[in-house]
Amino acid sequence: MTATHVTSREVRLVARPSGWPQPEDFEVAEVPVTEPPPGHVLVRNLHLSVDPYMRGRMNDQDSYVPPFELDQPMEGGAVGRVVSSRAPELPEGTHVLHPLGWREYAVLDARQATPVPTRFDNGQTVPLSTYLGVLGMTGLTAYAALVEVARLREGDVVFVSAAAGAVGSAAGQIARLRGASRVIGSAGTPEKVRLLLDEYGFDAAFDYRAGSVVEQLRSAAPEGIDVYLDNVGGDHLEAAIDVLRVHGRVAMCGMISQYNTTEATAAPHNLAKVIGKRLTLRGMLVRDHSDLREQFFHEVGGWVRTGALKYQETVVEGIDNAVEAFIGMLRGENVGKMVVSLPE
Amino acid sequence: MTATHVTSREVRLVARPSGWPQPEDFEVAEVPVTEPPPGHVLVRNLHLSVDPYMRGRMNDQDSYVPPFELDQPMEGGAVGRVVSSRAPELPEGTHVLHPLGWREYAVLDARQATPVPTRFDNGQTVPLSTYLGVLGMTGLTAYAALVEVARLREGDVVFVSAAAGAVGSAAGQIARLRGASRVIGSAGTPEKVRLLLDEYGFDAAFDYRAGSVVEQLRSAAPEGIDVYLDNVGGDHLEAAIDVLRVHGRVAMCGMISQYNTTEATAAPHNLAKVIGKRLTLRGMLVRDHSDLREQFFHEVGGWVRTGALKYQETVVEGIDNAVEAFIGMLRGENVGKMVVSLPE
Repeated sequence: MTATHVTSREVRLVARPSGWPQPEDFEVAEVPVTEPPPGHVLVRNLHLSVDPYMRGRMNDQDSYVPPFELDQPMEGGAVGRVVSSRAPELPEGTHVLHPLGWREYAVLDARQATPVPTRFDNGQTVPLSTYLGVLGMTGLTAYAALVEVARLREGDVVFVSAAAGAVGSAAGQIARLRGASRVIGSAGTPEKVRLLLDEYGFDAAFDYRAGSVVEQLRSAAPEGIDVYLDNVGGDHLEAAIDVLRVHGRVAMCGMISQYNTTEATAAPHNLAKVIGKRLTLRGMLVRDHSDLREQFFHEVGGWVRTGALKYQETVVEGIDNAVEAFIGMLRGENVGKMVVSLPE
Repeated sequence: MTATHVTSREVRLVARPSGWPQPEDFEVAEVPVTEPPPGHVLVRNLHLSVDPYMRGRMNDQDSYVPPFELDQPMEGGAVGRVVSSRAPELPEGTHVLHPLGWREYAVLDARQATPVPTRFDNGQTVPLSTYLGVLGMTGLTAYAALVEVARLREGDVVFVSAAAGAVGSAAGQIARLRGASRVIGSAGTPEKVRLLLDEYGFDAAFDYRAGSVVEQLRSAAPEGIDVYLDNVGGDHLEAAIDVLRVHGRVAMCGMISQYNTTEATAAPHNLAKVIGKRLTLRGMLVRDHSDLREQFFHEVGGWVRTGALKYQETVVEGIDNAVEAFIGMLRGENVGKMVVSLPE
């Protein structure tokens, strides 16, 4: 570590947002960089993740993850390079994935950091940032949601909402590669709809802002759907319940439509159909599925390296723009995984 | 068959109810009794079942069971005695369970009729009417909901709504007999609450009309619940989602709160918690679970014969009162299984 590394900038939460987060709810602070104690490493972060679930951690309420503390740096997925090591298993130069994002430098217990390969024996490579997206939490979310939570079967008709997002675009392609007979996606702009059809190979896609979700879904799936991967909630979930076939399955991964609402949220009024159709609705968090990680790296990693599975990233540069990237992601301005890059 | 059996009265649907069914939506008609053709039997019905699901069949809409036809006798569970047989496997005098209720006499294909024993080798007996209730569809619903749909485990805290009803009272006791650590029930009158505590051995019970469902449930289960058997929907489901622990399970058996509503029905506004808590909500119809029937007869039948599992019936006499019994059941006037008896 050289003298140029003496300070690090970090993003702190300074006020709890009510409804949509505002730039004033955050500040970027400069702090000294400390040397790692024994068993620890100092990492220069190269890419930071901004994800929908972080919105929940900004509220001071009982949730499945503890809230961010005020006036402290936020946390989140990050990949970087070890620049100073007091842990022999992670020598300087190692690329690692770890949970202390939202900052330029992080001092970590080596057990919190996972080495991530970017170059493979057969000469194939993957960009480091993929470990925040298609090969990271978002890809594993899509994989676990389909394989374990929704019990995807060959021949299933699959519907994915927020399908141009990081989880959704991976999910649609994984469903196809695993034998779905038809994959349908919804997204919020005509450009994203085109992307789903042209780039990600969805069989049908619609712009949920262009008309009724249930009517568009029904035209896209006249025979009904078997699996719905829900990233949205609200009218999308209601439409899926209407169109699901008997014994259909819903993996509930997120409700981005509801994260920033301050009043009682829209709820599906057709839940009684869950009984008649014997549907299963199952909530999931990716952290319950780490047992799948190895199988996921093998299967999805292989598809990514050969190009069978495509992904996109929306990259925003610089820690000063991280908050804007986060808010933009909540508004759906990203295509694929939203990443904040921190060039050296 | 004697000459006194020449006519049978049957209940017909003559108008599709909007909202609560009215007596004028039905009529009792008298029809000639015909001799059974080969392979068939003529059954004198002794007890008829009236069940919540029948309300759905009165609507002319796409549902999981076809609608009742207008000006035709309705259908439903019944037990009776074979009085004329052209099927050697079902001689005269056999007691059978079959799906042609709402009438005094039924001509049936022998394959539609299941012989039901009322006297056992060890001298134990069960009343014939139990095959419409605790040993019939309602008991099997409770059993399958707990064992297969909600995957009840020893030590679980279980909440049952409409707990003084036929499904609910069986479910609470089955849960206890299968090792639940605490069983909580809700019902609609103080008398029913007392019945749950004094007769059916619930650990806690509350009157949902006496206050907020979620507050009463939370006081009854300060540590949360693991399993909810939902017969009601609406505010009960919302309360359960609030109080369920991580990885909790909901068996959705019915939504009696919503069967007679004509406008958009109340829906839980806290479905986002299904994600954070990784809950599973699963709809069920008893007809998917006939593979459990033998195990159910063995296990629950044993408890009924020894008195370990208690049940009650509300008996209304006479085909002329069947409609009143049905409407009363929808209003919660029954305790335990509502049965229409047809004395000879």
